[in-house]
Amino acid sequence: MKTIALQASNKEFNFYYIKMFKSIFFVLAFTITVNAFGQHPICFATKQEVLEVKNGIKLYPLLANSYKEIKASVDEVVGKDIDVPYPKDAAGGYTHDKHKTNYTLIYNSGMLYQLTGEEKYAKLVKDVLLKYAILNPTLKKHPQATSAYYGHLFWQSLNDANWLVYSGLAYDCIHDYLTPAERKTIEDGAFKPEVDFFTKELKDWFNLIHNHAVWACAGVGIVGIATDNQDYVDMALKGADKDGKAGFLAQMEGLFSPDGYYAEGPYYTRYAILPFYVFANALNNKNSGLKIFNYRKNILQKALVGALQQTNLNGGFYSYNDALKEKSYISNEIVEALDIAWKVYGKDSGLLTIAEKQNRVTLNAGGMGVAAALNSAKNIAKYYPYKSVEFADGTNGDRGGVSILRTGSGDNLTSLIYKYTSLGMAHGHFDKLNYSLFDEGSEIIQDYGAVRFINIEQKWGGRYLPESKALAHQTISHNTLVVDEKSNYNGIESEGEKYHPIKLYSSIDNKNVQVVSVLDTTAYAGVNMLRTIYMLQLPNESKPLIVDVFKTASNTLHQYDLPFNYLGTLISSSCKYQYFKDKQIAFGKRNGYQFYWKEAEGIANAPLTQFTFLNGNNTFYSISSLTEDSTKVYFTRLGANDTNFNIRRDPAYVLRNYGTNKTFVNVIEPHGKFNPVSEISTDSYSDVKSIKLEESNNEYTVVNITVHNKQLMIIQCNNNYSKTEEHTYKYNDKTINFKGPYTVLLNNANFK
Amino acid sequence: MKTIALQASNKEFNFYYIKMFKSIFFVLAFTITVNAFGQHPICFATKQEVLEVKNGIKLYPLLANSYKEIKASVDEVVGKDIDVPYPKDAAGGYTHDKHKTNYTLIYNSGMLYQLTGEEKYAKLVKDVLLKYAILNPTLKKHPQATSAYYGHLFWQSLNDANWLVYSGLAYDCIHDYLTPAERKTIEDGAFKPEVDFFTKELKDWFNLIHNHAVWACAGVGIVGIATDNQDYVDMALKGADKDGKAGFLAQMEGLFSPDGYYAEGPYYTRYAILPFYVFANALNNKNSGLKIFNYRKNILQKALVGALQQTNLNGGFYSYNDALKEKSYISNEIVEALDIAWKVYGKDSGLLTIAEKQNRVTLNAGGMGVAAALNSAKNIAKYYPYKSVEFADGTNGDRGGVSILRTGSGDNLTSLIYKYTSLGMAHGHFDKLNYSLFDEGSEIIQDYGAVRFINIEQKWGGRYLPESKALAHQTISHNTLVVDEKSNYNGIESEGEKYHPIKLYSSIDNKNVQVVSVLDTTAYAGVNMLRTIYMLQLPNESKPLIVDVFKTASNTLHQYDLPFNYLGTLISSSCKYQYFKDKQIAFGKRNGYQFYWKEAEGIANAPLTQFTFLNGNNTFYSISSLTEDSTKVYFTRLGANDTNFNIRRDPAYVLRNYGTNKTFVNVIEPHGKFNPVSEISTDSYSDVKSIKLEESNNEYTVVNITVHNKQLMIIQCNNNYSKTEEHTYKYNDKTINFKGPYTVLLNNANFK
Repeated sequence: MKTIALQASNKEFNFYYIKMFKSIFFVLAFTITVNAFGQHPICFATKQEVLEVKNGIKLYPLLANSYKEIKASVDEVVGKDIDVPYPKDAAGGYTHDKHKTNYTLIYNSGMLYQLTGEEKYAKLVKDVLLKYAILNPTLKKHPQATSAYYGHLFWQSLNDANWLVYSGLAYDCIHDYLTPAERKTIEDGAFKPEVDFFTKELKDWFNLIHNHAVWACAGVGIVGIATDNQDYVDMALKGADKDGKAGFLAQMEGLFSPDGYYAEGPYYTRYAILPFYVFANALNNKNSGLKIFNYRKNILQKALVGALQQTNLNGGFYSYNDALKEKSYISNEIVEALDIAWKVYGKDSGLLTIAEKQNRVTLNAGGMGVAAALNSAKNIAKYYPYKSVEFADGTNGDRGGVSILRTGSGDNLTSLIYKYTSLGMAHGHFDKLNYSLFDEGSEIIQDYGAVRFINIEQKWGGRYLPESKALAHQTISHNTLVVDEKSNYNGIESEGEKYHPIKLYSSIDNKNVQVVSVLDTTAYAGVNMLRTIYMLQLPNESKPLIVDVFKTASNTLHQYDLPFNYLGTLISSSCKYQYFKDKQIAFGKRNGYQFYWKEAEGIANAPLTQFTFLNGNNTFYSISSLTEDSTKVYFTRLGANDTNFNIRRDPAYVLRNYGTNKTFVNVIEPHGKFNPVSEISTDSYSDVKSIKLEESNNEYTVVNITVHNKQLMIIQCNNNYSKTEEHTYKYNDKTINFKGPYTVLLNNANFK
Repeated sequence: MKTIALQASNKEFNFYYIKMFKSIFFVLAFTITVNAFGQHPICFATKQEVLEVKNGIKLYPLLANSYKEIKASVDEVVGKDIDVPYPKDAAGGYTHDKHKTNYTLIYNSGMLYQLTGEEKYAKLVKDVLLKYAILNPTLKKHPQATSAYYGHLFWQSLNDANWLVYSGLAYDCIHDYLTPAERKTIEDGAFKPEVDFFTKELKDWFNLIHNHAVWACAGVGIVGIATDNQDYVDMALKGADKDGKAGFLAQMEGLFSPDGYYAEGPYYTRYAILPFYVFANALNNKNSGLKIFNYRKNILQKALVGALQQTNLNGGFYSYNDALKEKSYISNEIVEALDIAWKVYGKDSGLLTIAEKQNRVTLNAGGMGVAAALNSAKNIAKYYPYKSVEFADGTNGDRGGVSILRTGSGDNLTSLIYKYTSLGMAHGHFDKLNYSLFDEGSEIIQDYGAVRFINIEQKWGGRYLPESKALAHQTISHNTLVVDEKSNYNGIESEGEKYHPIKLYSSIDNKNVQVVSVLDTTAYAGVNMLRTIYMLQLPNESKPLIVDVFKTASNTLHQYDLPFNYLGTLISSSCKYQYFKDKQIAFGKRNGYQFYWKEAEGIANAPLTQFTFLNGNNTFYSISSLTEDSTKVYFTRLGANDTNFNIRRDPAYVLRNYGTNKTFVNVIEPHGKFNPVSEISTDSYSDVKSIKLEESNNEYTVVNITVHNKQLMIIQCNNNYSKTEEHTYKYNDKTINFKGPYTVLLNNANFK
């Protein structure tokens, strides 16, 4: 099976490649010329593509279906008067949804005009745009605006940028149908006020290196190409001042790491990828010689493939940073990007798996290619070719990253997402050294995601709700250490932006032993945190064992809370606890703690405390923890202080201890199955019999774990991370030799 | 499409029909003779059937697959020594699961012996049964027993009965393979101790009219036929004393209403239907002239079809009374019953829909018939032919019942289950006049079901947990009135068993207006409750409107709580409430209230309070309530006093008021859709603008409801339920004439 390589290819380094902010000259050299005699359509599809798609509709069922769906949706309203209301409502309200529906409608109708030649479709686009040409010059700050980046048509400027992208594409389709006078009316009335608004009134926003500005630049650029306006294209590519410090090219530099990791995480990659691909496609159609899709060694290809690797079996994007869990790769943005990728980067069987689930294609050459491939494909894989992968974060790939450890295949895939990226701008969470666990397509240990009901007007106009920052951004709602009940960087975004953890070593190629070790010295002043995650596939086991070794170093005493935001029902706990029967209080007062109820509290058993829960996937999961007599255990549940009922009532299991230098060892173990239909449950008990910390100091951390009747020993070196360094470790009467920073022994034999 | 009629057919009343306990003579006349020269196999399948199935395996893929699956499962262990351990563990533990696995194994191996003729399969059965022949005579009360009906092999006698059914079937398959000496050893050692245990030691239990005893009688009867033991067969049919007051025939009388409604509800119908069908099949194979399947006008057919009508789109049985929601019609019991039904009652396209989802068949004539039909069937319907149905409860159909109101079709089916049955024995709940709502295959307003983790040893050996009686049986966990924070009949089972509500009238044939009106005068001493439910399908609406008119009559002041155990997330509430931010207390002290937390509390708006929630199916639901200034509103959530984490954290919305004669009017309204992928939400607001109670007295209850711009008026008569009575009602200047106990007007026109 062919997959797109995630690492940089060995292809000749192409001349467009630039170092961010260093080679403005090159950015300025990258330009395309538009003029009043440009061919149209050119943005979404060229004249030639349109001809091919017309033919393809007769040949490829999926293309035909997608065409029919779009046609049916437009035919419902074509010929009727389309309302273009004065902006009034927040998201989910009438005027918001109407303007949103309108831009989709004219985009679709424009394509239909090209594909059918029927004037009614062109007329629909023209009539709507002429109404906007009257409306837009009258608009000021939207009455529902709540941020500095307010919109005109919508409550926030981002939605205005969406409007500009689709309206530009629509206009391009009917360019030749319009009279010069009509063109001028629309260009001056509908487009110019929006472009001016972006590039002058909101110039700082337009010039950001941020997903909103990607949409804005794509909008201005597409309108530029569609209206043959060189000035717009130049601003789109190089920023409002056309100096290359901002704009689309700077965004392609600044928002991705060399691996294609997008700074805000996979949920926002999905969102940003549409304007990246759609504008790049328009640029490429205008001048393929520019090789925009090869820019930064195919960075847009890496971005797409990297985002897809960061999805769950159900297609949902991993929900770290602000993210809504319902969003999956069947969303429109990925359809658009994937179909263009198929055209420009060539065939990819992994993309075909996803295209089949999307079950629709775009009406251009890419979409046609996908539809043709699906039509002749045999044995399309059920799932994307998921594998263990790592992404470095930062423009230069030097600002931490994320590692995804995987074992199993098909429905039985287990994925652990270990996150040690930089903050990731305003949507980033304070979650240094956090991990999430997915198994069999279900979330097992979760990242809350974001608190938002997108587009439901009653929920604050569909905006991010206050609990998103107050809870979902905070460290406690993640699965990583919370020091003194405070969030990383005291929850200060500007502080968090400055730093990132450091990956010490990792190995993801040996399926038996995958390991990632990361150090953070900045999230908590005076506390160094070293978390090493092992995913071990023991012989004759269908599921992996996850060993989580979390070492702190500090000169002063701290409270250390280690939360597991698990999803499931408590089956058993070896810890005797007190349940807060008829009165319960919040877990804390601030930093997200105020949203958890304390359901029960107990004192851990030393040296081992075990907790088993049953997930909705009917598999059991146990967390076996090395604990002391002084370790407290909390069973908590979200819902406290949730005055607007915005938060899910999810549970968390929290281990609390006090100390300076502590080593937490936790073993996460999926096991057994509950079958309520056949009434059989298998392996409902943990196999972990003991956890012993032999030593943990500046030199070595050594752990012995008894798993059923097997003896598992992990030795990791804490002061030398060289892969070639030879170590000799004395254990009882034995001498253990190993190379590199760690070794794993199974029944005294090297398992590494 | 052919469906099996739910009502009694017009067929000649057959002579087996008897009145319970009145015609013991007839029961005694119903007998079959077995003797030492009986043909074997005969119970599960006859010799002739075996020949046909052998051939069918070559012809019908589903039969072949089912055969292969069974063969593969047996081949894994055939030839190996099978452990028959001394009983020790509760459900979910090793010995429990082993004995369970063993009886399935020998049943399968016995069938394989018949189908392949290979001795190894017979030997496996023989060896295992010989081990039981040594073990069983040594057994006494199981060490994990907790009830009076303890088992020997298992913690409860019911599981021993399961063992006897399957072991009898297995023995029958290898009867002719065994030497007479081996037969005697197994009959005396493996079977006789169990039969004696049931019919002597646990005679009271064996003679119950209850699902456990159905299993016990089926076990004894099947062993009787398999071992040619007339005494066993007679006891199975007529009770341990062979007087017809107990036993299988009395159970067929006593456990079903004439409609086929099974006294414990659909979850237990599923469970009891296997021994009913499997033993009846054995009897029928032995002597088809007895026409056991035509007994009580095909009561077993009505039972199966009735149970299937009481399932959700996902196949789950409606969870009223003790019930686990995970159980669906793909469970083994329904496979066995359905396949036999296919053989004895003939083709039924509804059954084929279910058989397709079951995706397996039994290896006898019925299973072969289903596999053959599926092989040649075209266009099998996606869903069972669900329709509005009513079932009377009680042997004579005179003890209340249940009405299922339905509108919509396919994925868009809305089902309201209005329950007014008798208590339903020990698994019955105190839920008089309760309803549950399902929509689009999701639970919207739920019955909690039961609190049990079946077969998970850590959860009290998989038994019903204490919270099942303490919470799930109590009235507050249902959606019906709770008077003075007490459950119906003060939660006393023996009291509850005596009474039942009275249906006053119903109409389910007019899709626009379905109505059921039921009176209860016994659940609360001194409080009469009249609840009338209207399911209205207004013109041009995709979803129905449910109007719930609940009228109380009492001479003394009471606290009335009306809970809605909804499932979903609060989207909006028109009621100003106080959220218990950082400290919350239990909703009450007893009768189930102690398990709810009070999350928030408010004072209703008069005269209309509205509450909208979003279900997991992404549809909005609103409850619009006629309220007064004195009405309190509680937002509660389960979890208080849940010391073992056994209870789901589900919410409830509770309206509280005080009074004597009160009329509660609530309108339940599914509306709109939330699409988080396309980020569009539609119709997220309730259309109900006002509810006005014009009057409510002994003569009439009259309600006016404004729905968007439509005026809906309901007039119901409270003292005459005749369908032919003519009423004249004066309203303002108008005179409204109607016939029968109610009328519904839409914009002043008759909608009824």
